[in-house]
Amino acid sequence: MKNILIIGCGLIGSSLVRAIAKQKFSKKIFVYEESRVNINKIKKLKLPCVLNDNLEHIVPKTDLIIICTPMSEYKKIILKINQYLLPKTTITDVGSSKVNSLILIKKYLKKGISWTSSHPISGSEVSGPEYGDKDLFLDKWCVLIKEKNSKKKDLLLLAKFWKKIGAKIVMMDSKKHDAIFAITSHLPHLIAYNLVKTAMDLEKQKKYDFLKFSAGGLRDFSRIAASNEVMWRDIFFQNQNNIVQAIDLFIKNLRSFKKNIKEKNNRALIKKLIDTKKVRKKIIRLKQDIDKPDFGRR
Amino acid sequence: MKNILIIGCGLIGSSLVRAIAKQKFSKKIFVYEESRVNINKIKKLKLPCVLNDNLEHIVPKTDLIIICTPMSEYKKIILKINQYLLPKTTITDVGSSKVNSLILIKKYLKKGISWTSSHPISGSEVSGPEYGDKDLFLDKWCVLIKEKNSKKKDLLLLAKFWKKIGAKIVMMDSKKHDAIFAITSHLPHLIAYNLVKTAMDLEKQKKYDFLKFSAGGLRDFSRIAASNEVMWRDIFFQNQNNIVQAIDLFIKNLRSFKKNIKEKNNRALIKKLIDTKKVRKKIIRLKQDIDKPDFGRR
Repeated sequence: MKNILIIGCGLIGSSLVRAIAKQKFSKKIFVYEESRVNINKIKKLKLPCVLNDNLEHIVPKTDLIIICTPMSEYKKIILKINQYLLPKTTITDVGSSKVNSLILIKKYLKKGISWTSSHPISGSEVSGPEYGDKDLFLDKWCVLIKEKNSKKKDLLLLAKFWKKIGAKIVMMDSKKHDAIFAITSHLPHLIAYNLVKTAMDLEKQKKYDFLKFSAGGLRDFSRIAASNEVMWRDIFFQNQNNIVQAIDLFIKNLRSFKKNIKEKNNRALIKKLIDTKKVRKKIIRLKQDIDKPDFGRR
Repeated sequence: MKNILIIGCGLIGSSLVRAIAKQKFSKKIFVYEESRVNINKIKKLKLPCVLNDNLEHIVPKTDLIIICTPMSEYKKIILKINQYLLPKTTITDVGSSKVNSLILIKKYLKKGISWTSSHPISGSEVSGPEYGDKDLFLDKWCVLIKEKNSKKKDLLLLAKFWKKIGAKIVMMDSKKHDAIFAITSHLPHLIAYNLVKTAMDLEKQKKYDFLKFSAGGLRDFSRIAASNEVMWRDIFFQNQNNIVQAIDLFIKNLRSFKKNIKEKNNRALIKKLIDTKKVRKKIIRLKQDIDKPDFGRR
């Protein structure tokens, strides 16, 4: 592959730059970045890429474009690159929600150009190019969105690309993707945000100095709830229907939990507390976490 | 101090054995343990303690008794040791909920004997003596419950004891303790259990293979939801009122979150997502977690 263009160079974009450079997968890595702060960081970090904002010049020379901006930027980006896009170029993005963003892409993308969406399941609560890591995608899943109209050539190229930088590929359609990640990722983040908000409210209410005792559980949620607000606002809005459905079931289950506690229903409560262990075992078997107790990070 | 008796030698009890032995704090460490499985593990591990089930013999010889069983065992234990207890002995426990267990203790403990409750804020999702760690209490908070009738001698001895094995001491009454830990520990655990339960329900409903994608958030909750079910049932039952109150506020906040998402209320949602970051910063400042991004454990 000759040239790759990364649009948006935060945590994911800069990890891609590092991973691609490590694998020598392309001749040139162009980076288009609008944030002055990020541009300065990229220069200071001496990332192995060519910063270039001349889209007219670089877009036609590119074999693969990877959009790594927040999803709410897609429309603006498409309108900027549309006139320079050639049918030979493979375009992908790394957004965390798919159905609605594909509708938007279809609406604004120039006819005759195809876009095949990716979602690497990797990241952290931090953002910015300084946190990027060449091994971020190593042994992680990358979902390729395969719809009826997906082009085989693009799917093959993207599968090759993600594998080259260490990821494992799985293909599914956008509807299934959004249903799955609503529960494995979007609801957990929302719940973490909501738990921290509830702790803040109770701290104000009771006027107790809560937070210094947060090692007993709250700490772990607070880490998740420190994630990037623009990215998560976009996800919550884009995957609205699945998330709302998951919230409703969550509240129903929480009410049942509350009832068991109020009635001191030993059998029902113990069953709930034991059942969840099976999930943990399955998650470890699926290598989504390690089987090692966590006593807190030091 | 001459002799210490640990009653119940799981994760916390066995960590105490190791920590006391390391500090050479007492002449002898007696362990009273009823579980055959744990007794065999303790022998195999060659823990530096004397296993002894002759309470008539060891209780009167003991200067400090530390109850480390689940809270639902307290009544049984008290009835077993009551007749051998001497007023000189300091008695404590390490339970995670206080108001109701102190009512029970007062009801069953022999008159003239005092009990001063402790709560070391340390642990993990695993249980059993094989997971114990001599450094489990190092730089962790230990709450000492100070009520109107608390004996100064016992508070002083316990403060000295916990500090000796590395903990930092804070004193508060049982009511404040239960209100604080309902939100920093009990609600987070309940929420983690409930999230994993909700994921299980959705997996059944949608018939999708969810769990292999759990690295995006669900994984961290599943770890917390793998905690000991007897211990957590006891906590949820004992601290019922505070927990139910916290659940109600949590649901109220979650409804508001859902409303913001459904209405695509950008301002309200972004405010929620930014506010929680302040809590994270405070938690790090209070040294309850480290300021290092988490990309998942390898």
